[in-house]
Amino acid sequence: MTSKIRVGIVGYGNLGRGVEAAITQNPDMRLVGVFTRRDPETVTLADPSIPVHSLDRIESFVGAIDVLILCGGSRNDLPEQGPTLARRFCTVDSFDTHARIPEYFAAVDEQARAGGKVALISVGWDPGLFSINRLFGEAILPEGATYTFWGKGLSQGHSDAVRRVPGVKMAVQYTIPSQEAIERVRQGELPELTTRERHQRECFVVLQEGADAAEVKEAIVTMPDYFADYDTTVHFIDEDTMQRDHSAMPHGGFVIRSGKTGNGPTHVIEYSLALNSNPEFTSSVLVAYARAAYRLHQNGEQGARTVFDVAPGLLSPKSPEDLRKELL
Amino acid sequence: MTSKIRVGIVGYGNLGRGVEAAITQNPDMRLVGVFTRRDPETVTLADPSIPVHSLDRIESFVGAIDVLILCGGSRNDLPEQGPTLARRFCTVDSFDTHARIPEYFAAVDEQARAGGKVALISVGWDPGLFSINRLFGEAILPEGATYTFWGKGLSQGHSDAVRRVPGVKMAVQYTIPSQEAIERVRQGELPELTTRERHQRECFVVLQEGADAAEVKEAIVTMPDYFADYDTTVHFIDEDTMQRDHSAMPHGGFVIRSGKTGNGPTHVIEYSLALNSNPEFTSSVLVAYARAAYRLHQNGEQGARTVFDVAPGLLSPKSPEDLRKELL
Repeated sequence: MTSKIRVGIVGYGNLGRGVEAAITQNPDMRLVGVFTRRDPETVTLADPSIPVHSLDRIESFVGAIDVLILCGGSRNDLPEQGPTLARRFCTVDSFDTHARIPEYFAAVDEQARAGGKVALISVGWDPGLFSINRLFGEAILPEGATYTFWGKGLSQGHSDAVRRVPGVKMAVQYTIPSQEAIERVRQGELPELTTRERHQRECFVVLQEGADAAEVKEAIVTMPDYFADYDTTVHFIDEDTMQRDHSAMPHGGFVIRSGKTGNGPTHVIEYSLALNSNPEFTSSVLVAYARAAYRLHQNGEQGARTVFDVAPGLLSPKSPEDLRKELL
Repeated sequence: MTSKIRVGIVGYGNLGRGVEAAITQNPDMRLVGVFTRRDPETVTLADPSIPVHSLDRIESFVGAIDVLILCGGSRNDLPEQGPTLARRFCTVDSFDTHARIPEYFAAVDEQARAGGKVALISVGWDPGLFSINRLFGEAILPEGATYTFWGKGLSQGHSDAVRRVPGVKMAVQYTIPSQEAIERVRQGELPELTTRERHQRECFVVLQEGADAAEVKEAIVTMPDYFADYDTTVHFIDEDTMQRDHSAMPHGGFVIRSGKTGNGPTHVIEYSLALNSNPEFTSSVLVAYARAAYRLHQNGEQGARTVFDVAPGLLSPKSPEDLRKELL
């Protein structure tokens, strides 16, 4: 029997908890420990038999961990942790600030090469699985157009923006793809779609005592960048309803490529996700790619990589022979 | 400027014609020639400036062709041509007899290794893109079930079976996925579906003069393997209607993975194709993978490969930097 892939988790928020759960579904992997910047005593894992360590002590685990899954945020955690940890460990992360991927890639690549490690960056569903489908779409149908729709899903950034409006006590915001726009794309129309035509935004708000609903609504729907360019609906609800109906983190979306082949026929390729927990699904993607990072390193590769560099077979615990026999 | 990838086509049926057309959509490729077992004088290409050669002469093109795209059939052509040609050329083919893939892989692999070439087998949409999505689905959601539905699409094998029925002059058969079954899968029900519940079959038949419609219909719907296990509809039409409405070769289908992550939330991953020309779309997939075969060989790889072994980035004419910047 081959030995299990030894995994470490850095950061224990929603994503870290999801990775812990996902590893239990993958018998070829073993969770060695969780590393946190908090006091380890204050962090309670779902499985209390797994040790929690201070992130300061991680250097002493070189050689005891095959892959580190970095579960921190793209704004404050990963820009520092990604390059530093890639020097000493093979890593997988979900860096998702699209505009900064090139500079983040370069920083991680330099350290991973210097340390002889493999670092898989920007893994998840977007960036990640959606990116792969955008690539396949244009490689197979070079003449055409690609459309990405998000939702229905909870947007963390937009929820935070609503929460900053004076008078708002609690808030969630759902991004809703326009069914009409999706239908037009599916019909092969290749429509030009404005921001307003692609998505709607729906907010659920609990007001602070004495706040004016009309003022709060106006402040939300006219907010530049976040809401002004969209059709936005605002619902005012009470705190109990918020807790009961809006604590899940659903998300998903569609990548649709519509195009024509050389002699004229049109074709539509559609990829969609309907996720009942955005962080848990992202965690499961990270765990599958941790297997790939381990194998790339075993094959002698070094440096930063993205989902574009990973052959699908590396994600599966099955042997190439079994994959050809069972899934091809 | 880098030089173009020099491509040869073996076999000039629907698939070969599609490859010729697809290459015109990919400016980094150049069609060197078409090779045929027929008399080359009798083969007229869409672009008459491209030479047609006898397949017997192909050995003299070693060094002048980077990748051969094999456009023959899986039953009679590829079992012989695949291994033979992989000895001297990098190849891509669409071998699609699922049950025989392991033995075909072994035969091609032996020759490709002996010749130091790369041979990509079983490329297209099923096997091919659908296979990749089956693999991704179970790697990311290990607890769940995968469903493949085909259609609406013209089935060559079933059309041929109808044509063999006494009294049938012309016939086409469409495979139609059950919308009800697809909806149940999308809802995350994980249903157990019988053959009859997954697909329906619809036949359009032109009768020979004097044939008995009721007898023909009975012979079709009770035909073992092909129709007996399905709900089959038979429409009798005249020859003009057949020519006008049933000469296209649409196809497509769905791969749906439904499963749950470690803490219980359920998720649905769906991939679907709606193709107005099955052979043209398959050809476009072959051409994108020809680029990958060329690059794998440039990277020093040797032997048979499948879509499971090809990193997505190798399919695109864009550089890794541009892919990360534009599509990730």
